[in-house]
Amino acid sequence: MVLLFTGVLWLGNKVIPGSPDAINTLQKLGKKVYYITNNSTKTRREFVTKCTSMGYQATEDSIVSTAFLTACYLQDINFNKKVYVIGSQGITQELDAIGIKYLDIGPDTMNCDMPTLLREKVALEPDVGAVVVGFDEHISFPKMLKAASYLKQKECVFVATNTDEQFPTEYPHLTVPGTGTFVKAIETCSGREAFKIGKPSPYVGEAIIKRHNVDPNRTLMIGDRCNTDILFGTLCGFKTLLVLTGVTTLQEVKKWQTSSKKEEQDLVPNYYTQSLADLLSLL
Amino acid sequence: MVLLFTGVLWLGNKVIPGSPDAINTLQKLGKKVYYITNNSTKTRREFVTKCTSMGYQATEDSIVSTAFLTACYLQDINFNKKVYVIGSQGITQELDAIGIKYLDIGPDTMNCDMPTLLREKVALEPDVGAVVVGFDEHISFPKMLKAASYLKQKECVFVATNTDEQFPTEYPHLTVPGTGTFVKAIETCSGREAFKIGKPSPYVGEAIIKRHNVDPNRTLMIGDRCNTDILFGTLCGFKTLLVLTGVTTLQEVKKWQTSSKKEEQDLVPNYYTQSLADLLSLL
Repeated sequence: MVLLFTGVLWLGNKVIPGSPDAINTLQKLGKKVYYITNNSTKTRREFVTKCTSMGYQATEDSIVSTAFLTACYLQDINFNKKVYVIGSQGITQELDAIGIKYLDIGPDTMNCDMPTLLREKVALEPDVGAVVVGFDEHISFPKMLKAASYLKQKECVFVATNTDEQFPTEYPHLTVPGTGTFVKAIETCSGREAFKIGKPSPYVGEAIIKRHNVDPNRTLMIGDRCNTDILFGTLCGFKTLLVLTGVTTLQEVKKWQTSSKKEEQDLVPNYYTQSLADLLSLL
Repeated sequence: MVLLFTGVLWLGNKVIPGSPDAINTLQKLGKKVYYITNNSTKTRREFVTKCTSMGYQATEDSIVSTAFLTACYLQDINFNKKVYVIGSQGITQELDAIGIKYLDIGPDTMNCDMPTLLREKVALEPDVGAVVVGFDEHISFPKMLKAASYLKQKECVFVATNTDEQFPTEYPHLTVPGTGTFVKAIETCSGREAFKIGKPSPYVGEAIIKRHNVDPNRTLMIGDRCNTDILFGTLCGFKTLLVLTGVTTLQEVKKWQTSSKKEEQDLVPNYYTQSLADLLSLL
């Protein structure tokens, strides 16, 4: 049995009580555990450090992150040019690890007027062959302009790490834009559609099945959001378990259960539990 | 007869040869002329200056711009709070003209890390009651975050000046992001849909009909793009004239003419001409 966990380990920087015990015990019982994350701001190594600090047993091999899979995707298509990255070191360090070159990341602010920018400041590099869009708090007009201009070349590859509209935050009065916001912006100005890596795109599932030789029928997707995690599990042919510590409520699930629409039926998990701690007490 | 012109006066900073003569002659023949623009970066007064410098006769009253109409829209709904503007002085000066208050515009760059930004730097003002999105080359993560956070309040009004995906440019190797790019970004992170002012939204047409007491049946929309100008004219019930100095070709028009789809029939102009100069020689 393979267990895929997402969104049920922590909220921001707070561990979800009982989750480490539950997952560590499942591993002791011989279950193979992978952690899936759409967050492109960290390398797998950094996720291992975070997992360990929160009491979860993890190795780099057990982390399935969109920054890592974006690098894998480019490797799989034998990409050998440079990448224009809208994103963070989470992405560039994974590119470094497999020897793919990229242009500098970080701030690229609008520090002149528009005519000057267009006339003098946008030097497109001829050897760029891909645009990758991940989470980037330095998103700016010059970055959008460059990404869209590289994407004028039809052969330029366009990859998005994920499409989450918002970034999770502990401040209820704020809405923090997520990667999906930047992806939509670049899709809009470039007139092109990005290849999406993260959930609910089935690419992550296909990668796990292929890389780790996993049998979908014996794989359980465990998450806290039906419209991403459970839908993703359903689309990949995994069994699904909803943990009710997140945004999805049991009431919503029961509504979808009685729906005649396929897209709502796809949101219904095979199983649900109040918390991972509860699951353990059942076992 | 009322004539509405858009996109056929100049390309960038170059006047389209013959157009000033044609339009000025039509005015002398007693036709009422309005200039429609989706460009939100200039006030009506600035458009008059540009028109005059290029040889067109224009008054503020003859300019129908999205920055001006955005201010009119807020006035029409008796808006009396402050506006959070993603945009330029083109918008804020039109707000000034009718006494609507707004927060400072201009650069708002990411000059700290994310935790610091979220904890200390996002002071939402309680009296903001609208978010307006126009063209803003200073678009940034803090701006997106603030716009989306103000829009968490359901009663917060959300207006977009226009949805043009790209901004016209004289540099063929560049794709310059247009207002539609920023609008899509804010719609994505806020989960809300903006009320759109500019073409092809019929709001501009309704505003012209109402403000200038115009009879749609005796109004001719003259433009160079079928998917915005002609569609807009058709939707407003105006007669339409395509000038073939722009992106739309006669070949495309002939294809749509034989289409059985309503959405393609709506793109077909009532009349077409190679140039405004040609039109004049016909008269």
